[in-house]
Amino acid sequence: MKAKLKIVVGLVVLLGFGALISAASAQFSRPEDAIKYRKSVMFIIAQHFGRLGAMVKGVKPYDLDKFVNNAALVDTLAALPWEAFLTASSDRGDTTMKSSVLKNSDEFNKAAQKFQQETGALVDVTESNDVDATKRQFGSVAKSCKDCHSQFRK
Amino acid sequence: MKAKLKIVVGLVVLLGFGALISAASAQFSRPEDAIKYRKSVMFIIAQHFGRLGAMVKGVKPYDLDKFVNNAALVDTLAALPWEAFLTASSDRGDTTMKSSVLKNSDEFNKAAQKFQQETGALVDVTESNDVDATKRQFGSVAKSCKDCHSQFRK
Repeated sequence: MKAKLKIVVGLVVLLGFGALISAASAQFSRPEDAIKYRKSVMFIIAQHFGRLGAMVKGVKPYDLDKFVNNAALVDTLAALPWEAFLTASSDRGDTTMKSSVLKNSDEFNKAAQKFQQETGALVDVTESNDVDATKRQFGSVAKSCKDCHSQFRK
Repeated sequence: MKAKLKIVVGLVVLLGFGALISAASAQFSRPEDAIKYRKSVMFIIAQHFGRLGAMVKGVKPYDLDKFVNNAALVDTLAALPWEAFLTASSDRGDTTMKSSVLKNSDEFNKAAQKFQQETGALVDVTESNDVDATKRQFGSVAKSCKDCHSQFRK
């Protein structure tokens, strides 16, 4: 019975995982579209995170309105690209994504959630207008970028 | 005096236009970055507008939450790419943008504003849950896309 239960649980988990991948794939008719979509989102995030970075590093003067707007945009965009990363076969072609994203999707999802937590916290702290705390939280977002990239990017 | 006034007005307009272009360029260190940025934004808009289109055309069932989320995202993204289009020299290189965007920036800005008005109206009508009115407004957004593309895209 115990062995049978394990098989059943295993099957349910597999089916659930399959459904997740299938749901993710459903948004994109071709893996190339998923790759283009996530690259586009990541490029826009990088541009707006770069504008925050310029203010954090003093390359540009700190402007609260601009900081709030760019942080909110990074946080909105941070919700978007994950289904595209989890699209079947999108580890092949013009991409720097490691296949481990698809093989260890639980680990990948944890890293994706961590990034979103950090961008959400950046929005909150920015609105409080505590510039030092905002700069520290910018660093925490940057760390979550790097952690995910070093694990899942070629 | 009248002729002098015209020259002064003309100079002020020219300086204002120059400042606009300069402010726009300031966000992007290279025209290639501006091109990549606006292409990325437009691709993401097209993806999410396509998801709305699938529901409008009955390819997918109409889902209010999904419609609201995708419409809001299209409206947020609709605010982003215009500075990138107005970046100096970004009519050359890997782009389908006509040079008339830079030469007739007033006309271009009008078309850009029209698109943003239509996406804003789509968010409003979608939230009212009047499906027929939502589908009509989807058509108005699509028209504003086409009008701008036919005028300013190669």
